[in-house]
Amino acid sequence: MNKTIGIFGGGQLGRMMAQAALPLNIQCTFFEASADCPSAALGTVYSSAAEHGLQNFIQSADVFSLEFENTPLADVDVLTQSKALHPPRQALAIAQNRLQEKALFDALQIPVAPYKAVDSLDSLQAAVAELGLPIVLKTATGGYDGKGQFVLRSADQIDQAWAELGPAGSLIAESFVTFSREVSIIAVRGQNGDVKTWPLAENHHHHGILSHSIVPAPNSIDLQPVAQDYITRLLNHLNYVGVLTLELFVTEKGLYANEMAPRVHNSGHWSIEGAVCSQFENHVRAVAGLPLGSTEVVRPTVMVNIIGQHPKSEDVLALNGAHLHLYNKTEREGRKIGHITLMPNDSRELTSLCRQLAKILPNPLALSEDMSI
Amino acid sequence: MNKTIGIFGGGQLGRMMAQAALPLNIQCTFFEASADCPSAALGTVYSSAAEHGLQNFIQSADVFSLEFENTPLADVDVLTQSKALHPPRQALAIAQNRLQEKALFDALQIPVAPYKAVDSLDSLQAAVAELGLPIVLKTATGGYDGKGQFVLRSADQIDQAWAELGPAGSLIAESFVTFSREVSIIAVRGQNGDVKTWPLAENHHHHGILSHSIVPAPNSIDLQPVAQDYITRLLNHLNYVGVLTLELFVTEKGLYANEMAPRVHNSGHWSIEGAVCSQFENHVRAVAGLPLGSTEVVRPTVMVNIIGQHPKSEDVLALNGAHLHLYNKTEREGRKIGHITLMPNDSRELTSLCRQLAKILPNPLALSEDMSI
Repeated sequence: MNKTIGIFGGGQLGRMMAQAALPLNIQCTFFEASADCPSAALGTVYSSAAEHGLQNFIQSADVFSLEFENTPLADVDVLTQSKALHPPRQALAIAQNRLQEKALFDALQIPVAPYKAVDSLDSLQAAVAELGLPIVLKTATGGYDGKGQFVLRSADQIDQAWAELGPAGSLIAESFVTFSREVSIIAVRGQNGDVKTWPLAENHHHHGILSHSIVPAPNSIDLQPVAQDYITRLLNHLNYVGVLTLELFVTEKGLYANEMAPRVHNSGHWSIEGAVCSQFENHVRAVAGLPLGSTEVVRPTVMVNIIGQHPKSEDVLALNGAHLHLYNKTEREGRKIGHITLMPNDSRELTSLCRQLAKILPNPLALSEDMSI
Repeated sequence: MNKTIGIFGGGQLGRMMAQAALPLNIQCTFFEASADCPSAALGTVYSSAAEHGLQNFIQSADVFSLEFENTPLADVDVLTQSKALHPPRQALAIAQNRLQEKALFDALQIPVAPYKAVDSLDSLQAAVAELGLPIVLKTATGGYDGKGQFVLRSADQIDQAWAELGPAGSLIAESFVTFSREVSIIAVRGQNGDVKTWPLAENHHHHGILSHSIVPAPNSIDLQPVAQDYITRLLNHLNYVGVLTLELFVTEKGLYANEMAPRVHNSGHWSIEGAVCSQFENHVRAVAGLPLGSTEVVRPTVMVNIIGQHPKSEDVLALNGAHLHLYNKTEREGRKIGHITLMPNDSRELTSLCRQLAKILPNPLALSEDMSI
């Protein structure tokens, strides 16, 4: 079996997919604007900017997947005339539209914060009346890292909010949720319908970017089966093949779904060393029609992102049990350019490792001294 | 740090080194006759058959290593005029000459089976008289998988043995050792002199080729410190940098050194999943001048070679916790074309997994039903 998998996107997620595919004699190709993207070390990159780029990419592989969740549906529609895409187009389309996503959560009885669709000044005023304030107004499609969002704290901001986001046409107004922490669940579904789930990750952010994930999420024994149930509903409903991620808020009323990502996820990078089979290998296995591997945890793990600037490799590798994953990306503020996996034996060692790491990383992160595993 | 490591050889060992190097943003290049060698997926291959191939290879990287222990010393001598090689030339030269190797073991008081140098019919007769029969006569250099060897069982074979091997000039006559099992120890030494050792592997052969390795070797608690001491003597004496392997026989009189390999080793492939830091990553770290990683075992592991013919990937991956490593090599009798890592929870699961694996592999191996971990 020497299948080739074509991947929409060529970032670090594609790079790590291809790394997992190589030992299975599975080759990857990529569809990406930039020829020197992180995936380029591991397979041919077909330029999405070039003439016939898409057609050449489609001819380059047997089966297709994605690592970029904003993959244009128009490209997918050309692809699926001749080749299969995993995950399915529908999952991608829903993940690209916040209103459709919330509607799916509702339909599958997965709790979400109260929300209303907004497509006019009138409907925005009605949403404010119904949901109360504060609310966050978002464009239904597009938007990234806080762009395309407006936080409405008082009624006199309604006109300004509408002026800013109204031109997008389709908006969503969401109530604020009071949550104690954010977690994510990652699962994989094979072509035969098998589902396997990794343990919940507890995710910590810094300036809106994932700083680090702790797996298994502390005190999550009761949450795990609930989250597993939710993501399994999504996978089966969508007849999904591959890895799916569901971000959740831990609230007093239980887990609330935030959003889903139809792909491998930053909060699953820990699984390269921390699980018997990583999210990347299981995604590749699913897309290639192979049996899924065990998602069992080998050892509790903390994954720390490298953001903006590289630390010295020798400093990181001197930490006991540390694994370094660099993405071959240039430094830029706020950019994810690598990650570090720590596998401490206990909370005390975790605290010590995180203190050392905080000194080594050029950028301050949300690493605190009171983490536990 | 974006160092490039140039590797003599381009087989599966180079492939797995480059896989370990990639996440550290370390690129590899290779010097190998065949352009479609297993390492080719991960770096530029400079043909050892091409004009200026060696010079181009030397210019392609910052620091050099090897995965092929028969790397010509003449090539190394050209290289070391301008660039550094890890491990050192001396280690390679000694490993390429059985007489020098035994002399080093003697000098470092590492026990070996009785042996004699043979360079004439007279000295062969003297060796037989001194060592007794049977003995195995080997060429001091060259020879592979039983070639260049003659097993002498009776004195009337002396003339025939000399006729066959005498033209090689320099021979070694070795006593047979009665041993209960064969083990190997793998260690790594950093540029700062740090030494780390993985646990002993118990190695099982089939028709002279490694079939599988069990790690840690069962009942090896008393052997481990002895083996560690031996390999540490070798590493320090040679001022070695990188991974070194020492094959040993377990005899009634203790451990006897068989031979050393100045490189990563088939009996260390288990460490990709089974150890915190694999032999490949630690070799790369050592060659690049980085701190060494922990050689601690994550879980007891069995590594099974795929020899000659590929099994169906889906059959292997259906085994609980199995990892598949294919080398992108064509099938040929007796050829190592991949390996499988099993990480059973206990002896019962090991037995079950090995029985299943024996049914899946096209080639019968030395997998038996009475293995233990």
